Amino acid sequence: MKNNSNAGVLRVIPLGGLEQIGMNITAFEYQDSIVVVDCGMAFPDDDMLGIDMVIPDITYLLENKEKVKGFVITHGHEDHIGALPYIIKQLNVPIYATKLTIGLIENKFEEHGLMETTRRKIIDFGQSINLGHFRIEFIKTNHSIQDAAALAIYSPAGTIVHTGDFKVDYTPVYGDAIDLQRFAEIGRKGVLALMCDSTNAERPGFTMSERTVGTTIDTLFSENTRERIIIATFASNVDRVQQIINSAYKFGRKVVIQGRSMENVIGTASRLGYLNIPENTLIDINEMKNYPDDKLVLVTTGSQGESMAALSRMAADLHKKVTIKPNDTIIFSSHPIPGNEKAVSNVINELYEKGAKVIFQDVHVSGHACQEEIKLIYSLVKPKYAVPVHGEFRHLTAQANLAKSLGYPSERIFKMHTGDVLEFRDGEAKIVDKVQTGGIMVDGLGVGDVGNIVLRDRQKLSEDGIIIVVFTLDRASNQLLSGPDIVTRGFVYVRESEDLIDEAHDVAEDALGSALDAHVTDWGKLKLTVKDALGSFVWRRTKRRPMILPIIMEA
Amino acid sequence: MKNNSNAGVLRVIPLGGLEQIGMNITAFEYQDSIVVVDCGMAFPDDDMLGIDMVIPDITYLLENKEKVKGFVITHGHEDHIGALPYIIKQLNVPIYATKLTIGLIENKFEEHGLMETTRRKIIDFGQSINLGHFRIEFIKTNHSIQDAAALAIYSPAGTIVHTGDFKVDYTPVYGDAIDLQRFAEIGRKGVLALMCDSTNAERPGFTMSERTVGTTIDTLFSENTRERIIIATFASNVDRVQQIINSAYKFGRKVVIQGRSMENVIGTASRLGYLNIPENTLIDINEMKNYPDDKLVLVTTGSQGESMAALSRMAADLHKKVTIKPNDTIIFSSHPIPGNEKAVSNVINELYEKGAKVIFQDVHVSGHACQEEIKLIYSLVKPKYAVPVHGEFRHLTAQANLAKSLGYPSERIFKMHTGDVLEFRDGEAKIVDKVQTGGIMVDGLGVGDVGNIVLRDRQKLSEDGIIIVVFTLDRASNQLLSGPDIVTRGFVYVRESEDLIDEAHDVAEDALGSALDAHVTDWGKLKLTVKDALGSFVWRRTKRRPMILPIIMEA
Repeated sequence: MKNNSNAGVLRVIPLGGLEQIGMNITAFEYQDSIVVVDCGMAFPDDDMLGIDMVIPDITYLLENKEKVKGFVITHGHEDHIGALPYIIKQLNVPIYATKLTIGLIENKFEEHGLMETTRRKIIDFGQSINLGHFRIEFIKTNHSIQDAAALAIYSPAGTIVHTGDFKVDYTPVYGDAIDLQRFAEIGRKGVLALMCDSTNAERPGFTMSERTVGTTIDTLFSENTRERIIIATFASNVDRVQQIINSAYKFGRKVVIQGRSMENVIGTASRLGYLNIPENTLIDINEMKNYPDDKLVLVTTGSQGESMAALSRMAADLHKKVTIKPNDTIIFSSHPIPGNEKAVSNVINELYEKGAKVIFQDVHVSGHACQEEIKLIYSLVKPKYAVPVHGEFRHLTAQANLAKSLGYPSERIFKMHTGDVLEFRDGEAKIVDKVQTGGIMVDGLGVGDVGNIVLRDRQKLSEDGIIIVVFTLDRASNQLLSGPDIVTRGFVYVRESEDLIDEAHDVAEDALGSALDAHVTDWGKLKLTVKDALGSFVWRRTKRRPMILPIIMEA
Repeated sequence: MKNNSNAGVLRVIPLGGLEQIGMNITAFEYQDSIVVVDCGMAFPDDDMLGIDMVIPDITYLLENKEKVKGFVITHGHEDHIGALPYIIKQLNVPIYATKLTIGLIENKFEEHGLMETTRRKIIDFGQSINLGHFRIEFIKTNHSIQDAAALAIYSPAGTIVHTGDFKVDYTPVYGDAIDLQRFAEIGRKGVLALMCDSTNAERPGFTMSERTVGTTIDTLFSENTRERIIIATFASNVDRVQQIINSAYKFGRKVVIQGRSMENVIGTASRLGYLNIPENTLIDINEMKNYPDDKLVLVTTGSQGESMAALSRMAADLHKKVTIKPNDTIIFSSHPIPGNEKAVSNVINELYEKGAKVIFQDVHVSGHACQEEIKLIYSLVKPKYAVPVHGEFRHLTAQANLAKSLGYPSERIFKMHTGDVLEFRDGEAKIVDKVQTGGIMVDGLGVGDVGNIVLRDRQKLSEDGIIIVVFTLDRASNQLLSGPDIVTRGFVYVRESEDLIDEAHDVAEDALGSALDAHVTDWGKLKLTVKDALGSFVWRRTKRRPMILPIIMEA
């Protein structure tokens, strides 16, 4: 009878993307149909030592595998597509997205050898696809990557508008402005809920047009006519690179693209027609030597101070082909993402040390809507319910406050948590359940083999290192045959702390001796005795708590 | 003849405080006299795993111990006094500072049992002290802690003005405004060099008066009359706490001070008369229960999201006496220091989760001079040489650019590095030498026993953990008696990776067996063979590089 009781019931289940910026993935369920919007990765938290990335736990989707009709992807940023290569191996359903988004997904799939086994379909703006009980319409928006879409998700229970990541850019560099008329039309017909980007919901005002950055870049080119110009920006911001190329062309400079991700994205965007590069403007890095400084622009990765990125390597004198010179002009066309401030600052310091001029303010605009834009979308869509998405709780709260300022009562605003099941039944919304969710850690080739125990060990090892105590026992007689030997790593510099290590050895030996004399035969108990004795000795002497690991060899 | 050739020569040697904000300490040397300005600590860099703090390497001072006349401290912030308890044990000379600064130093010395063995002298503003060939005058400034001083350092070779950390506050909360007239007078008599705070040299304009924050706090009190108010700020900002107390008194609320460092500083400031608390305003935290929410204000540490601070514990439900409630109003009277953004954001999210209202914008002003203030000081002092201090290279560069904009030619501006010896001879300045400097890491009770090798091990351990391979050999016959046994920590969750560990065991056993069969008797070589075999197996299978540690037991 489950189907009957669920007649007319629409469920929205975020499996990630709340409590954090990253790992966006949301399931929409109506009877036997599930559509999944986005499938992103997240960068590891600071305490996830050694972890490369985090992908969503899709247990709920796997348990309802037969219902899942496909992934609908709003745009090509990592926090919306980055988990696809991992997830699609477990849940191979078709993927629907706009052309550039599919292009960027295919870059990943080629790397992972997934081109033959997966299904991908390009959707145009204005076009709709039917997926089970759902119809999904792609609506043109603006963002810091081209081809970003909002989605109108039509179900028999009503329509949900999901903005994706967006801003309102009346004068975009490429293509059309956001299709505000369509938002209004859909709104006029009645929308059950609006799921709107919260990233900038704390910021008053209106995000400036990407085109204003072009004007700034033009000005910087006109003020730095004799220097080599190096500009760092986000690899995926094709419009930004387009504007740099425009300025370069105008000022008679050749453009070199540097950094693997930049070359990848620009290659794809250019091949698919999203970038207009005048002939003879782009040159290979090896041709740089044929041009004087004032005829060159380098466009590079590393705007976030990432240690392996091209600009960071240039700043640290580790780049094979580019050496920073006094009077180079280096422009950060970016803002540091929260958490990256120090890394960016380190790169800026290194560049200054080399005598370069560094410009890092006001050569960037955000790709996300500020408060006035969010209010505009609410006012066009006029949803019954407000469901802020894409952000930490503070950002969802800020959008909730905006909704309140527009007259929404609290009971029509849902600040959701990952895993919450938001049910729409007879037009009324309620959180009715919670499903399993979480972050699966990817470390090298391992997906999910590092969990909290391993992380806790890494944390402990990172703080005070490890002391290993090995000794050999005769299993039959329980007699000490050799050891205890003490080996440490990451604890103290042993050569200068011989006395301490000698004493530690004596402490271990005494503890072990007393236990053996007392006929302790349980090896677990023996280990614990040695561990406790050594642990308190070390704490008393150093106020440190290294991991203490007794190992008994049997002979 | 050394003394003769150095007749009339003044040397300035920063032993810390450049390339970073923190660890300020600078030596001024004239013939047989050295005066040391400040003695601060630095917080560890992100890659200094497990390190508690960093203090300066004072090898140069120890090598010239008989010359050192004393420490002159500009103000009581940790980056100016934090290393004193450690350094004074190696170099016990008198300490000179203003009253509150000495009070805060004595707090530390009491903890370290140094009150009996050290000499400390309180100096008033306008007063001078003679230290060998030097005379040092204390000049009143404004900063985010009271009793901050600039120094006029008079030597036979000329006068140097050192601003300390400062801002220009025409309407300070406590005491006088910065003594601009005295800066002008000293300037009029001729100043060789100005060493000026660079922290905010990238920021245009003028730092607002501390008093403006008081107005904001008053407004917030008047807008939140029914809620309990919790305000987090810097423990050392006594004027900020004074203004909160003023608002609390005005609005009839009792004040609770929370957090160890806050209680310490406020206790000291109050005892020394820097804080004016109306009777019956301060209450103990245990009395809170006797007052309704709208009659309470908590002033707390944790404005930087420090995990152990009071506010963070309240937000995480770990505080023993305060539970955050919906409708609590929590005010961050602070800005996140670069590097702390994420930690602060986590606390904000947790507070919102509990339904609290959180205000974290525009309830703070900086304690450092912006560009217009820096230009003002240059224009009053009119030094021959500009020597920007207190900042990363980007900040020194920004101040250097300000000096250029005031007409200083490049050869009169010295962007120094830690350890550079800046020599003034016959009124001409030149960098002539470099002395040993560096950061000494403090970890628990250990000072300097953690170096790069230990840190590198901690780094490696933190990323992929450790694999230990133990086996017992008979020394005489070189036969394998037991093992190899494999133990891992921080590598994979062993219970779910038994196959991998089994295979790793086989790889180690094969490598060891082949080597023993080939009569390898050098244990170093045996270890290396096992390590290499296991290392490449693990990399191939997991793309991880744990530390691999072979241990041979002798039986």
